Amino acid sequence: MEVKDFEVLQAELLELLENKNMKQFRQELEDMNEFDVASFISALPQRKIATVFRLLSKIKAAEVFANLETPEQSHIIDSINDAELGEIIEELYLDDTVDLLEELPANVVKRVMRTANPEKRRLINQYLEYPENSAGSIMTAEYVDLKKYMNVREAIARIRRIGEDRETIYTCFVVSSDRQLEGVVTVKDLLLSEDEAMIGDIMDENIIHATTTDDQEEVSVLFSDYDLLAVPVVDKEGRLVGIVTVDDVIDVLQEETTEDFEIMAAMTPSTVPYSRAGVKDIWKSRIPWLMFLMLSATFTSMIINRFESALAASAVLIGFIPMLMDTGGNSGSQSSTAVIRSLSLGDTEPKDILPVVWKEGRVAFWCGLTLAVVNFGKMFLVDRLLLGNADINVAVALTVSTTLVFVVLFAKLVGSMLPIVAEKIGIDPAVMASPLISTITDAVSLLIYFRLAGAVLGI
Amino acid sequence: MEVKDFEVLQAELLELLENKNMKQFRQELEDMNEFDVASFISALPQRKIATVFRLLSKIKAAEVFANLETPEQSHIIDSINDAELGEIIEELYLDDTVDLLEELPANVVKRVMRTANPEKRRLINQYLEYPENSAGSIMTAEYVDLKKYMNVREAIARIRRIGEDRETIYTCFVVSSDRQLEGVVTVKDLLLSEDEAMIGDIMDENIIHATTTDDQEEVSVLFSDYDLLAVPVVDKEGRLVGIVTVDDVIDVLQEETTEDFEIMAAMTPSTVPYSRAGVKDIWKSRIPWLMFLMLSATFTSMIINRFESALAASAVLIGFIPMLMDTGGNSGSQSSTAVIRSLSLGDTEPKDILPVVWKEGRVAFWCGLTLAVVNFGKMFLVDRLLLGNADINVAVALTVSTTLVFVVLFAKLVGSMLPIVAEKIGIDPAVMASPLISTITDAVSLLIYFRLAGAVLGI
Repeated sequence: MEVKDFEVLQAELLELLENKNMKQFRQELEDMNEFDVASFISALPQRKIATVFRLLSKIKAAEVFANLETPEQSHIIDSINDAELGEIIEELYLDDTVDLLEELPANVVKRVMRTANPEKRRLINQYLEYPENSAGSIMTAEYVDLKKYMNVREAIARIRRIGEDRETIYTCFVVSSDRQLEGVVTVKDLLLSEDEAMIGDIMDENIIHATTTDDQEEVSVLFSDYDLLAVPVVDKEGRLVGIVTVDDVIDVLQEETTEDFEIMAAMTPSTVPYSRAGVKDIWKSRIPWLMFLMLSATFTSMIINRFESALAASAVLIGFIPMLMDTGGNSGSQSSTAVIRSLSLGDTEPKDILPVVWKEGRVAFWCGLTLAVVNFGKMFLVDRLLLGNADINVAVALTVSTTLVFVVLFAKLVGSMLPIVAEKIGIDPAVMASPLISTITDAVSLLIYFRLAGAVLGI
Repeated sequence: MEVKDFEVLQAELLELLENKNMKQFRQELEDMNEFDVASFISALPQRKIATVFRLLSKIKAAEVFANLETPEQSHIIDSINDAELGEIIEELYLDDTVDLLEELPANVVKRVMRTANPEKRRLINQYLEYPENSAGSIMTAEYVDLKKYMNVREAIARIRRIGEDRETIYTCFVVSSDRQLEGVVTVKDLLLSEDEAMIGDIMDENIIHATTTDDQEEVSVLFSDYDLLAVPVVDKEGRLVGIVTVDDVIDVLQEETTEDFEIMAAMTPSTVPYSRAGVKDIWKSRIPWLMFLMLSATFTSMIINRFESALAASAVLIGFIPMLMDTGGNSGSQSSTAVIRSLSLGDTEPKDILPVVWKEGRVAFWCGLTLAVVNFGKMFLVDRLLLGNADINVAVALTVSTTLVFVVLFAKLVGSMLPIVAEKIGIDPAVMASPLISTITDAVSLLIYFRLAGAVLGI
């Protein structure tokens, strides 16, 4: 229902703009949610974007700006003067500023940095140094800090005073005079306590926290395990340097998931949404893996060529090559996907490699056996009787079916082991997904097939 | 760092339990986070689970219970009496109760329902009727409701009075006397307003909301678009019936993602985490698709058999079958994954089918062309010169390379179109992923290959 509401709103706004009814147009924009205003502005023709953006109030402008995509942000920065830019940077939360700077070209970054005040510039520089995808890179500096010796009334007074421009006020962080993190207290705790209660007494000292260098995926697991709204981030000395809020974690989860999907489908991950990516960018993200996998198939060709004369003599075997390769690929892909996902949810850890392989081995045995039995029956009933392929006999059916058992076993063992090994040696496990596993399985499946054919059929 | 902390804690607790130091053991459990207590209890031998659980205070017990997995929950329910069960159900949030009942066997459900009070029983029955994966099925009833005519002081007093057992207090919902949803006000708004300000004046009437029958994935998009902590859920008449909170949405996102991964890797989705799933369950979730895809490969076999004599005459062609099939599968899988993900993020909609296909067509053309050129060179340099395969000549290399262009084009068009078509006709687009696309592409790739071979090589 949200989409329809937005389309109605959009039509109304465009009409007001058309009729130059600017007063009502501005009022409507101010009343709208910043995400909807950003969607409205993104859909405008480029020459109108900056004009409409300049109609927004200072605070609204910063909120809307944070919700725009990089191309619109760049365009607006190019169209406004330094004073206007300074006002936006002043109002933007630090994490949004840092995200922005990471995407902009160097000359624009310089201009933005020049317009920021010195304190903000220092913080921006500090934040820009945290490694990509670390807790430090997604945290922000706008939190509410309290002291142990405040009482609840004083704490609430402080929140009322400084809360306006904090990214969250609902989780407050208790710090010592040298900024050591001592406890966490929520607004719920404050509201449900007596006015005179001391923060030191009601705060939770059992703090779930992250360090600046923790991976953002680990941070997101904290949120889903402990149902939190904000997590404090401390440096190596235990000093509070920032917080990560739940809304940013949702974005992290979506991004990490998209990245996993892309890597698992043999694409280089991209930060540009699919609908906005150009043909050249998509080509660039897809061609390297396609090329690598195509060239890797040379091994498969070599194996087939080695057995060429045997195949020519027993041509009926060729027809089952695609089925064997696909079944191997699919079996391996099931195992690798299950393990990759389990690793990224924190449900499986690298040390679990033996139980995982033992489990997958048994699953593989039963899957392989089921498929082999059904395939044996199918080769006689469908291929021989129904389709009249007279070359199919017990020996051929036995060869294909036995190959199936070994192929499924091999594929599932490799598919479950490689992602864990990758995690252990610090490679993204998502690389060990379907395309790569299929390519490995293909070559081995053919070797098993031809060896078995040699043994059973004597070719 | 959390994991290590937890392991230290676990060792300490086990030692206290060993030494029968029950007073300190209970105190430690009360001080711990409910998620950690649940992890500790799950790791205990089964005969100790209920004993330790009964040491918890009433409120802690309910919180811990909500964090346990179904097998432990069932085991505890079996080990406690009706009065104890009644107390837990009393304290559990409604959404956790409903989740629990959906997993338990019928006789246990009966017992739970008998111990709930009549009002809760009525609500449970109402909630159980909402369709699976709908907003209604994930919402809860414990929210703070306010009236327009209250002032800020009265509103805060109400929050202090009823806030203790509400799932969130930070977003409050303003309802009329007939429970129509009129506005939303956050605790931040309350704290930053004057005590005498009227709720009707400060509330936001521009309400982002969901209806009970909305899909949970749509609800999660609202959270990520608008950075919300809670979304109100209304019935068809616009009455407020529940709320969805951000912590539940994170769980929904994780579940939906896991489900997409499973479906895209040809597995039946399961709610049991991989580490806890048994061999038989995993076999059951994997064998149907493996079987279906294996049997579908019959078409591929038929095509090969039809061209058997041609292949026997020009055996060099056989060696490139795996490479062509894999490249087709990988190309299709890239496109289908990109489109499936884009659909589930709300970035692409079914009405975008033409621009998507046009974009994918151009990407496919360039990818196909690049691969064809490289492959042509590789066949001469590597296969012919380096590996000494004398059967490779210009005609053969031309056949394989031209096939590549068509295969990539076909795979990417099918891979991008099928997920959108699936979404349009109400099938989960994730079904149209790599395994199915590969199977379709295999058959078509071979047809293209053999037709082209016929045309170029005259076989």
